[in-house]
Amino acid sequence: MPRVVDHEERRREIVFALWLVIALHGIEGVSLRQVAAEAGVSMGRIQHYFGTKDALVLAGCTALVDSAYGGYLETADAAPRDRLLHVVGQQIPRDDAGRMGVSVWYAYVAKSINHAAVRQVLAEARRGAEDECVRLIRADGGSDGAAGGSDGAAGDDAALTQARRLLALADGLTLRVLVRDLEPAEALSMLEAEVGRAPTA
Amino acid sequence: MPRVVDHEERRREIVFALWLVIALHGIEGVSLRQVAAEAGVSMGRIQHYFGTKDALVLAGCTALVDSAYGGYLETADAAPRDRLLHVVGQQIPRDDAGRMGVSVWYAYVAKSINHAAVRQVLAEARRGAEDECVRLIRADGGSDGAAGGSDGAAGDDAALTQARRLLALADGLTLRVLVRDLEPAEALSMLEAEVGRAPTA
Repeated sequence: MPRVVDHEERRREIVFALWLVIALHGIEGVSLRQVAAEAGVSMGRIQHYFGTKDALVLAGCTALVDSAYGGYLETADAAPRDRLLHVVGQQIPRDDAGRMGVSVWYAYVAKSINHAAVRQVLAEARRGAEDECVRLIRADGGSDGAAGGSDGAAGDDAALTQARRLLALADGLTLRVLVRDLEPAEALSMLEAEVGRAPTA
Repeated sequence: MPRVVDHEERRREIVFALWLVIALHGIEGVSLRQVAAEAGVSMGRIQHYFGTKDALVLAGCTALVDSAYGGYLETADAAPRDRLLHVVGQQIPRDDAGRMGVSVWYAYVAKSINHAAVRQVLAEARRGAEDECVRLIRADGGSDGAAGGSDGAAGDDAALTQARRLLALADGLTLRVLVRDLEPAEALSMLEAEVGRAPTA
Protein backbone atom coordinates (compact mmCIF):
# COMPACT_ATOMS: atom_id res chain seq x y z
CA MET A 1 0.00 0.00 0.00
CA PRO A 2 1.46 3.39 -0.93
CA ARG A 3 2.19 5.82 1.89
CA VAL A 4 -0.74 8.14 2.34
CA VAL A 5 0.30 11.79 2.35
CA ASP A 6 -1.88 13.76 4.70
CA HIS A 7 -1.82 17.18 3.10
CA GLU A 8 -3.90 18.76 5.83
CA GLU A 9 -1.48 17.49 8.47
CA ARG A 10 1.50 18.87 6.51
CA ARG A 11 -0.14 22.26 6.10
CA ARG A 12 -0.91 22.26 9.82
CA GLU A 13 2.71 21.51 10.74
CA ILE A 14 3.91 24.38 8.58
CA VAL A 15 1.37 26.75 10.16
CA PHE A 16 2.51 25.70 13.67
CA ALA A 17 6.09 26.44 12.66
CA LEU A 18 5.00 29.84 11.32
CA TRP A 19 3.28 30.68 14.62
CA LEU A 20 6.43 29.78 16.53
CA VAL A 21 8.55 32.01 14.30
CA ILE A 22 6.03 34.87 14.73
CA ALA A 23 6.01 34.43 18.52
CA LEU A 24 9.80 34.58 18.60
CA HIS A 25 10.58 37.16 15.89
CA GLY A 26 7.35 39.00 15.08
CA ILE A 27 5.60 38.95 11.70
CA GLU A 28 8.22 41.25 10.18
CA GLY A 29 10.84 38.69 11.21
CA VAL A 30 9.20 35.81 9.29
CA SER A 31 11.21 34.24 6.48
CA LEU A 32 10.36 31.10 4.51
CA ARG A 33 13.83 29.82 5.43
CA GLN A 34 13.13 30.03 9.17
CA VAL A 35 9.67 28.50 8.89
CA ALA A 36 11.10 25.66 6.78
CA ALA A 37 13.84 25.02 9.36
CA GLU A 38 11.32 25.08 12.22
CA ALA A 39 8.91 22.73 10.40
CA GLY A 40 11.69 20.43 9.20
CA VAL A 41 10.61 20.74 5.56
CA SER A 42 12.10 22.37 2.46
CA MET A 43 11.29 25.93 1.43
CA GLY A 44 10.00 24.46 -1.82
CA ARG A 45 7.38 22.45 0.04
CA ILE A 46 6.12 25.53 1.87
CA GLN A 47 5.88 27.36 -1.46
CA HIS A 48 4.07 24.36 -2.92
CA TYR A 49 1.43 24.44 -0.17
CA PHE A 50 1.11 28.18 0.46
CA GLY A 51 2.74 30.14 -2.37
CA THR A 52 4.39 33.36 -1.22
CA LYS A 53 5.52 34.35 2.26
CA ASP A 54 2.67 36.87 2.40
CA ALA A 55 0.12 34.17 1.53
CA LEU A 56 1.58 31.94 4.27
CA VAL A 57 1.32 34.76 6.83
CA LEU A 58 -2.32 35.34 5.87
CA ALA A 59 -3.05 31.58 6.02
CA GLY A 60 -1.58 31.60 9.55
CA CYS A 61 -4.09 34.30 10.53
CA THR A 62 -7.04 32.39 9.09
CA ALA A 63 -5.83 29.18 10.79
CA LEU A 64 -5.72 31.01 14.15
CA VAL A 65 -9.35 32.05 13.73
CA ASP A 66 -10.39 28.56 12.52
CA SER A 67 -8.69 26.96 15.50
CA ALA A 68 -10.69 29.12 17.94
CA TYR A 69 -13.90 28.36 16.04
CA GLY A 70 -13.16 24.62 16.12
CA GLY A 71 -12.91 24.76 19.91
CA TYR A 72 -16.26 26.53 20.09
CA LEU A 73 -18.02 23.90 17.93
CA GLU A 74 -17.08 21.27 20.53
CA THR A 75 -19.28 23.08 23.09
CA ALA A 76 -22.42 22.48 20.99
CA ASP A 77 -24.15 20.46 23.75
CA ALA A 78 -23.49 22.96 26.55
CA ALA A 79 -25.97 25.52 27.94
CA PRO A 80 -26.03 28.95 26.23
CA ARG A 81 -24.42 30.68 29.19
CA ASP A 82 -21.55 28.15 29.33
CA ARG A 83 -21.03 28.49 25.58
CA LEU A 84 -20.98 32.28 26.00
CA LEU A 85 -18.32 31.94 28.68
CA HIS A 86 -16.35 29.69 26.30
CA VAL A 87 -16.47 32.26 23.47
CA VAL A 88 -15.32 35.15 25.62
CA GLY A 89 -12.96 33.15 27.87
CA GLN A 90 -11.19 30.90 25.35
CA GLN A 91 -8.48 33.45 24.60
CA ILE A 92 -7.39 33.91 28.24
CA PRO A 93 -3.97 32.21 28.27
CA ARG A 94 -3.83 29.38 30.87
CA ASP A 95 -0.21 28.36 30.20
CA ASP A 96 2.87 29.18 28.11
CA ALA A 97 1.33 27.66 24.97
CA GLY A 98 -1.71 29.89 25.45
CA ARG A 99 0.55 32.88 25.98
CA MET A 100 2.32 32.14 22.72
CA GLY A 101 -1.00 31.85 20.87
CA VAL A 102 -2.17 35.22 22.19
CA SER A 103 1.19 36.77 21.39
CA VAL A 104 0.80 35.62 17.78
CA TRP A 105 -2.74 37.02 17.78
CA TYR A 106 -1.49 40.45 18.90
CA ALA A 107 1.26 40.33 16.30
CA TYR A 108 -1.50 39.98 13.68
CA VAL A 109 -3.45 42.81 15.30
CA ALA A 110 -0.41 45.08 15.03
CA LYS A 111 0.13 43.93 11.43
CA SER A 112 -3.51 44.69 10.56
CA ILE A 113 -2.75 48.42 10.67
CA ASN A 114 -0.98 48.28 7.33
CA HIS A 115 -2.27 44.97 5.92
CA ALA A 116 -5.84 45.10 4.58
CA ALA A 117 -6.28 41.32 4.15
CA VAL A 118 -5.21 40.58 7.75
CA ARG A 119 -7.46 43.40 8.96
CA GLN A 120 -10.39 41.84 7.11
CA VAL A 121 -9.80 38.37 8.58
CA LEU A 122 -9.61 39.83 12.11
CA ALA A 123 -12.68 42.03 11.62
CA GLU A 124 -14.75 39.13 10.26
CA ALA A 125 -13.68 36.89 13.14
CA ARG A 126 -14.67 39.60 15.60
CA ARG A 127 -18.04 40.13 13.93
CA GLY A 128 -18.67 36.37 13.87
CA ALA A 129 -17.90 36.13 17.61
CA GLU A 130 -20.12 39.14 18.30
CA ASP A 131 -23.06 37.67 16.34
CA GLU A 132 -22.67 34.36 18.16
CA CYS A 133 -22.57 36.10 21.56
CA VAL A 134 -25.74 38.05 20.73
CA ARG A 135 -27.44 34.79 19.77
CA LEU A 136 -26.30 33.06 23.00
CA ILE A 137 -27.31 36.02 25.19
CA ARG A 138 -30.78 35.94 23.70
CA ALA A 139 -31.00 32.14 24.03
CA ASP A 140 -29.92 32.40 27.66
CA GLY A 141 -32.45 35.17 28.30
CA GLY A 142 -35.15 32.84 27.01
CA SER A 143 -34.47 30.42 29.85
CA ASP A 144 -34.06 32.69 32.88
CA GLY A 145 -33.72 36.27 31.73
CA ALA A 146 -30.55 37.17 33.65
CA ALA A 147 -28.34 37.92 30.63
CA GLY A 148 -30.83 39.27 28.10
CA GLY A 149 -34.34 38.25 27.22
CA SER A 150 -36.40 41.34 26.51
CA ASP A 151 -38.10 41.15 23.13
CA GLY A 152 -37.93 43.41 20.09
CA ALA A 153 -35.46 46.12 19.08
CA ALA A 154 -34.62 47.28 22.62
CA GLY A 155 -33.75 43.70 23.61
CA ASP A 156 -31.57 43.30 20.50
CA ASP A 157 -29.70 46.51 21.30
CA ALA A 158 -29.16 45.40 24.90
CA ALA A 159 -27.85 42.02 23.74
CA LEU A 160 -25.50 43.68 21.24
CA THR A 161 -24.17 46.11 23.85
CA GLN A 162 -23.70 43.22 26.29
CA ALA A 163 -21.91 41.14 23.62
CA ARG A 164 -19.57 44.01 22.78
CA ARG A 165 -18.85 44.73 26.42
CA LEU A 166 -18.09 41.05 27.13
CA LEU A 167 -15.78 40.65 24.14
CA ALA A 168 -13.94 43.92 24.79
CA LEU A 169 -13.57 43.04 28.46
CA ALA A 170 -12.17 39.61 27.50
CA ASP A 171 -9.63 41.24 25.16
CA GLY A 172 -8.51 43.63 27.88
CA LEU A 173 -8.25 40.92 30.54
CA THR A 174 -6.26 38.77 28.10
CA LEU A 175 -3.77 41.60 27.76
CA ARG A 176 -3.40 41.80 31.54
CA VAL A 177 -2.79 38.06 31.86
CA LEU A 178 -0.34 38.25 28.98
CA VAL A 179 1.88 40.79 30.75
CA ARG A 180 1.57 38.60 33.90
CA ASP A 181 -0.21 41.36 35.75
CA LEU A 182 -3.34 39.28 36.45
CA GLU A 183 -3.81 35.57 37.13
CA PRO A 184 -5.80 33.56 34.54
CA ALA A 185 -8.22 32.51 37.32
CA GLU A 186 -8.89 36.18 38.25
CA ALA A 187 -9.60 37.06 34.63
CA LEU A 188 -11.94 34.09 34.20
CA SER A 189 -13.78 34.91 37.41
CA MET A 190 -14.35 38.52 36.24
CA LEU A 191 -15.75 37.16 32.96
CA GLU A 192 -18.02 34.75 34.83
CA ALA A 193 -19.37 37.60 36.94
CA GLU A 194 -19.96 39.69 33.80
CA VAL A 195 -21.70 36.85 31.93
CA GLY A 196 -24.10 36.45 34.84
CA ARG A 197 -24.85 40.16 34.89
CA ALA A 198 -27.89 41.87 33.39
CA PRO A 199 -27.32 44.18 30.40
CA THR A 200 -27.75 47.93 30.94
CA ALA A 201 -28.79 49.39 27.58
CA MET B 1 25.59 83.83 22.35
CA PRO B 2 26.37 80.12 21.85
CA ARG B 3 23.68 77.96 20.31
CA VAL B 4 21.70 76.26 23.01
CA VAL B 5 21.44 72.51 22.45
CA ASP B 6 18.15 71.21 23.74
CA HIS B 7 19.05 67.68 24.71
CA GLU B 8 15.50 66.80 25.74
CA GLU B 9 14.18 67.93 22.37
CA ARG B 10 16.81 65.85 20.55
CA ARG B 11 16.02 62.77 22.60
CA ARG B 12 12.33 63.32 21.87
CA GLU B 13 12.91 63.53 18.11
CA ILE B 14 14.85 60.28 18.17
CA VAL B 15 12.07 58.57 20.15
CA PHE B 16 9.46 59.83 17.65
CA ALA B 17 11.56 58.38 14.82
CA LEU B 18 11.81 55.08 16.73
CA TRP B 19 8.02 54.91 17.14
CA LEU B 20 7.56 55.48 13.41
CA VAL B 21 10.00 52.68 12.58
CA ILE B 22 8.20 50.36 15.05
CA ALA B 23 4.80 51.24 13.56
CA LEU B 24 6.09 50.46 10.07
CA HIS B 25 8.40 47.50 10.68
CA GLY B 26 7.67 46.14 14.16
CA ILE B 27 10.11 46.09 17.08
CA GLU B 28 12.06 43.21 15.51
CA GLY B 29 12.50 45.41 12.44
CA VAL B 30 14.16 48.28 14.34
CA SER B 31 17.76 49.15 13.40
CA LEU B 32 19.79 52.15 14.58
CA ARG B 33 20.42 52.91 10.91
CA GLN B 34 16.70 53.26 10.13
CA VAL B 35 15.96 55.31 13.24
CA ALA B 36 18.89 57.60 12.43
CA ALA B 37 17.65 58.06 8.85
CA GLU B 38 14.10 58.76 10.07
CA ALA B 39 15.28 61.26 12.70
CA GLY B 40 17.79 62.90 10.35
CA VAL B 41 20.68 62.37 12.78
CA SER B 42 23.78 60.16 12.80
CA MET B 43 23.82 56.69 14.34
CA GLY B 44 26.59 57.97 16.62
CA ARG B 45 24.27 60.61 18.06
CA ILE B 46 21.61 58.01 18.88
CA GLN B 47 24.25 55.87 20.59
CA HIS B 48 25.44 58.96 22.47
CA TYR B 49 21.95 59.62 23.82
CA PHE B 50 20.62 56.10 24.31
CA GLY B 51 23.49 53.59 24.12
CA THR B 52 22.47 50.29 22.53
CA LYS B 53 19.52 49.53 20.26
CA ASP B 54 17.93 47.55 23.09
CA ALA B 55 18.26 50.54 25.46
CA LEU B 56 16.65 52.78 22.82
CA VAL B 57 13.73 50.37 22.39
CA LEU B 58 13.20 50.29 26.16
CA ALA B 59 13.42 54.11 26.35
CA GLY B 60 10.73 54.26 23.66
CA CYS B 61 8.44 52.14 25.85
CA THR B 62 9.02 54.36 28.92
CA ALA B 63 8.44 57.47 26.79
CA LEU B 64 5.10 56.07 25.60
CA VAL B 65 3.98 55.60 29.21
CA ASP B 66 5.30 59.05 30.24
CA SER B 67 3.46 60.67 27.34
CA ALA B 68 0.13 59.17 28.48
CA TYR B 69 0.83 60.23 32.07
CA GLY B 70 1.66 63.80 30.96
CA GLY B 71 -1.73 64.06 29.29
CA TYR B 72 -3.42 62.91 32.49
CA LEU B 73 -1.63 65.52 34.63
CA GLU B 74 -3.23 68.22 32.48
CA THR B 75 -6.68 67.12 33.72
CA ALA B 76 -5.80 67.99 37.34
CA ASP B 77 -8.61 70.58 37.64
CA ALA B 78 -11.37 68.34 36.24
CA ALA B 79 -13.98 66.42 38.25
CA PRO B 80 -13.00 62.86 39.35
CA ARG B 81 -15.43 61.23 36.93
CA ASP B 82 -14.08 63.25 33.98
CA ARG B 83 -10.52 62.39 34.98
CA LEU B 84 -11.53 58.73 35.19
CA LEU B 85 -12.96 58.92 31.69
CA HIS B 86 -9.69 60.52 30.54
CA VAL B 87 -7.56 57.71 32.02
CA VAL B 88 -9.61 54.93 30.47
CA GLY B 89 -10.47 56.75 27.22
CA GLN B 90 -7.14 58.37 26.31
CA GLN B 91 -5.90 55.32 24.40
CA ILE B 92 -8.92 55.11 22.04
CA PRO B 93 -7.42 56.19 18.71
CA ARG B 94 -9.26 59.24 17.27
CA ASP B 95 -7.15 59.55 14.10
CA ASP B 96 -4.26 57.99 12.17
CA ALA B 97 -1.69 59.38 14.62
CA GLY B 98 -3.62 57.76 17.47
CA ARG B 99 -3.79 54.51 15.53
CA MET B 100 -0.04 54.57 15.07
CA GLY B 101 0.50 55.19 18.79
CA VAL B 102 -1.71 52.24 19.73
CA SER B 103 -0.01 50.07 17.13
CA VAL B 104 3.36 50.85 18.76
CA TRP B 105 1.84 50.08 22.16
CA TYR B 106 0.68 46.64 20.97
CA ALA B 107 4.09 46.00 19.44
CA TYR B 108 5.55 46.50 22.93
CA VAL B 109 2.87 44.25 24.43
CA ALA B 110 3.84 41.48 22.00
CA LYS B 111 7.52 42.10 22.77
CA SER B 112 6.87 41.87 26.51
CA ILE B 113 6.40 38.09 26.19
CA ASN B 114 10.14 37.55 25.84
CA HIS B 115 11.53 40.85 27.20
CA ALA B 116 11.44 41.17 31.00
CA ALA B 117 12.29 44.92 31.13
CA VAL B 118 9.51 45.86 28.68
CA ARG B 119 7.11 43.63 30.59
CA GLN B 120 8.01 45.43 33.82
CA VAL B 121 7.46 48.89 32.31
CA LEU B 122 4.05 47.83 30.95
CA ALA B 123 3.02 46.14 34.20
CA GLU B 124 4.01 49.18 36.29
CA ALA B 125 2.13 51.52 33.95
CA ARG B 126 -0.94 49.31 34.20
CA ARG B 127 -0.74 49.16 38.00
CA GLY B 128 -0.28 52.94 38.17
CA ALA B 129 -3.37 53.48 36.02
CA GLU B 130 -5.33 50.99 38.12
CA ASP B 131 -4.35 52.69 41.40
CA GLU B 132 -5.31 56.08 39.98
CA CYS B 133 -8.69 54.75 38.77
CA VAL B 134 -9.41 53.27 42.21
CA ARG B 135 -8.60 56.65 43.78
CA LEU B 136 -10.85 58.50 41.29
CA ILE B 137 -13.72 56.02 41.69
CA ARG B 138 -13.61 56.51 45.45
CA ALA B 139 -13.36 60.30 45.10
CA ASP B 140 -16.33 60.28 42.74
CA GLY B 141 -18.31 58.03 45.11
CA GLY B 142 -17.74 60.61 47.85
CA SER B 143 -19.67 63.20 45.85
CA ASP B 144 -22.67 61.28 44.53
CA GLY B 145 -22.10 57.57 45.04
CA ALA B 146 -22.85 56.40 41.49
CA ALA B 147 -19.42 54.94 40.70
CA GLY B 148 -18.24 53.70 44.10
CA GLY B 149 -18.55 55.18 47.54
CA SER B 150 -19.15 52.43 50.06
CA ASP B 151 -16.66 52.53 52.92
CA GLY B 152 -14.22 49.94 54.20
CA ALA B 153 -12.81 46.78 52.63
CA ALA B 154 -15.94 45.90 50.63
CA GLY B 155 -15.93 49.38 49.07
CA ASP B 156 -12.22 49.06 48.23
CA ASP B 157 -12.79 45.71 46.56
CA ALA B 158 -15.70 47.10 44.58
CA ALA B 159 -13.60 50.07 43.45
CA LEU B 160 -10.73 47.77 42.43
CA THR B 161 -13.06 45.47 40.49
CA GLN B 162 -14.63 48.49 38.79
CA ALA B 163 -11.18 49.93 37.94
CA ARG B 164 -10.04 46.63 36.44
CA ARG B 165 -13.24 46.23 34.47
CA LEU B 166 -13.00 49.78 33.10
CA LEU B 167 -9.35 49.45 32.07
CA ALA B 168 -9.82 46.01 30.51
CA LEU B 169 -12.90 47.23 28.66
CA ALA B 170 -10.94 50.24 27.36
CA ASP B 171 -8.15 47.95 26.12
CA GLY B 172 -10.63 45.74 24.33
CA LEU B 173 -12.52 48.65 22.75
CA THR B 174 -9.21 50.14 21.62
CA LEU B 175 -8.47 46.92 19.80
CA ARG B 176 -11.83 47.08 18.02
CA VAL B 177 -11.27 50.68 16.91
CA LEU B 178 -7.77 49.74 15.79
CA VAL B 179 -9.03 47.08 13.38
CA ARG B 180 -11.65 49.63 12.18
CA ASP B 181 -14.46 47.45 13.42
CA LEU B 182 -15.87 50.07 15.79
CA GLU B 183 -16.04 53.87 15.54
CA PRO B 184 -14.05 55.88 18.13
CA ALA B 185 -17.30 57.62 19.16
CA GLU B 186 -19.03 54.26 19.82
CA ALA B 187 -16.11 53.11 21.97
CA LEU B 188 -16.07 56.37 23.96
CA SER B 189 -19.80 56.24 24.49
CA MET B 190 -19.55 52.68 25.86
CA LEU B 191 -16.83 53.85 28.26
CA GLU B 192 -18.96 56.81 29.35
CA ALA B 193 -21.87 54.46 30.09
CA GLU B 194 -19.56 52.18 32.07
CA VAL B 195 -18.01 55.02 34.08
CA GLY B 196 -21.50 56.14 35.11
CA ARG B 197 -22.43 52.64 36.16
CA ALA B 198 -22.47 51.27 39.70
CA PRO B 199 -19.89 48.62 40.61
CA THR B 200 -21.13 45.05 41.19
CA ALA B 201 -18.71 43.46 43.66
